[in-house]
Amino acid sequence: MTDLWQNSMDHAVAAARRAGQVVQQALQDDRKVMTKSSSVDLVTQTDQRVEQLIIQSVKEKFPTHRFIGEESVAAGEPCVLTDDPTWIIDPIDGTTNFVHAFPFVAVSIGFSVNKQVEFGVVYSCLEDKMFTARRGRGAFCNGEPLQVSHQTDIKQSIIATEFGSSRDPEAVDKIFSSLRNVLCIPIHGVRGAGTAAVNMCLVASGCVEAYYETGIHVWDVAAGSLIVSEAGGVLMDTEGGEVDLMSRRIVAANNRTIAERIIREIDPFSPTRDDAPSKSSQ
Amino acid sequence: MTDLWQNSMDHAVAAARRAGQVVQQALQDDRKVMTKSSSVDLVTQTDQRVEQLIIQSVKEKFPTHRFIGEESVAAGEPCVLTDDPTWIIDPIDGTTNFVHAFPFVAVSIGFSVNKQVEFGVVYSCLEDKMFTARRGRGAFCNGEPLQVSHQTDIKQSIIATEFGSSRDPEAVDKIFSSLRNVLCIPIHGVRGAGTAAVNMCLVASGCVEAYYETGIHVWDVAAGSLIVSEAGGVLMDTEGGEVDLMSRRIVAANNRTIAERIIREIDPFSPTRDDAPSKSSQ
Repeated sequence: MTDLWQNSMDHAVAAARRAGQVVQQALQDDRKVMTKSSSVDLVTQTDQRVEQLIIQSVKEKFPTHRFIGEESVAAGEPCVLTDDPTWIIDPIDGTTNFVHAFPFVAVSIGFSVNKQVEFGVVYSCLEDKMFTARRGRGAFCNGEPLQVSHQTDIKQSIIATEFGSSRDPEAVDKIFSSLRNVLCIPIHGVRGAGTAAVNMCLVASGCVEAYYETGIHVWDVAAGSLIVSEAGGVLMDTEGGEVDLMSRRIVAANNRTIAERIIREIDPFSPTRDDAPSKSSQ
Repeated sequence: MTDLWQNSMDHAVAAARRAGQVVQQALQDDRKVMTKSSSVDLVTQTDQRVEQLIIQSVKEKFPTHRFIGEESVAAGEPCVLTDDPTWIIDPIDGTTNFVHAFPFVAVSIGFSVNKQVEFGVVYSCLEDKMFTARRGRGAFCNGEPLQVSHQTDIKQSIIATEFGSSRDPEAVDKIFSSLRNVLCIPIHGVRGAGTAAVNMCLVASGCVEAYYETGIHVWDVAAGSLIVSEAGGVLMDTEGGEVDLMSRRIVAANNRTIAERIIREIDPFSPTRDDAPSKSSQ
């Protein structure tokens, strides 16, 4: 059993690196941008091309595996996590960064079996950092082991979050009030890389104590969640309790003390779940 | 006259690189942190050591030049810009990032004569990016010419800003209301590297359309301001009109259209000027 998914993981690392090369090449070329749900939520041709590249290569090698991909879901494919081996793919996490050549752009590939993430790969391709984790075997960046920060004092912490792509006033109200509460605990500062996957890798690397966000999707966080927990961190829901990767809410922290302290300051809300039956893509 | 300040600029580039090496070395070692005005505004021994290293090397070579340095001012030195050749130094811009090993940490050296910045050097040392500009001769990153974004549509823009180190409720109110106004224009997104110098270099590189902040100091922005303007960008005050580097308010943008659009959304306030006569360090 020990090496059951190692072949798949090796394939994921190779696919992420190849995808990252396509992303870097595309950044040199002209970038044709199409609008998806709003001017904030950008889809580029590269996004779709990279997802197809990953999915095709997996289908050839592992024909029985399933997929949840950002672009496939946007195109109408279902977003349901079954017990089957499932590749959960965000071809470009940080599309806005990509469009602007802002230096954090990641390929994110999570792999779940029996609804549990078995391995996660995040390739931050402009930094050339390959983050990997396999359940029970630790987390790594370019082969070096990762360890979350040891900080337990929230006042000595940096917290990562994002404003997200929704400009719905009610959501924006909650995002701003939560952020202000967190900032004025007070903490050292707030940061945001512009990608959930990289934010989670920053938690795993010990550069920030925690990351929280509401509105993210399962493909943004599947890989990163395992990287955080294998680096010694914890995952929780924004109201406390266990995280649900389909719920679009996450707190990833170096430890429970920091996670619970942040959760006290978060004004929670619930976007439509990723696996909601009649969910139109958004 | 053409090469009048070239020697000084060459010295600044070499000093910034050497300082960056000290910073990188210190990040490997243990970091002993002292508290300055608040838990947010950190000073490390490295900060002071790097400033002394730069100032000493300049004094030996250019004994008549003056200095404005973050750490010297914190230690009680005056912060007044005269017509004399003056080195304006932030030894570590992004001290909070430095303490947390967050990947944006910069050495910033501006040089002014007759109150005009003649050259600016920003060394983003963890990225190993050396940003340089000399008045009238363009801006460069590692020798490659920089050019601001051509975007004139604010809705297609990313804006950089920071929450700053003040947790004074009135300042925080204004920072949050301005940020919300800007976000909901709407724009593509908000980013913040955690250092004014790097944020300005991101404007110069075309990765963000603009950066604005109130509460920064002259040593944070002296070098970056020339890098932005030499890359084709503009500098303004947060209420419009000409920027005053001692006023602790700045808008740095790719063009006037974007700058003026942001200024309409900013709720301005005025921290104590850097050159206020009785100003205690903060």
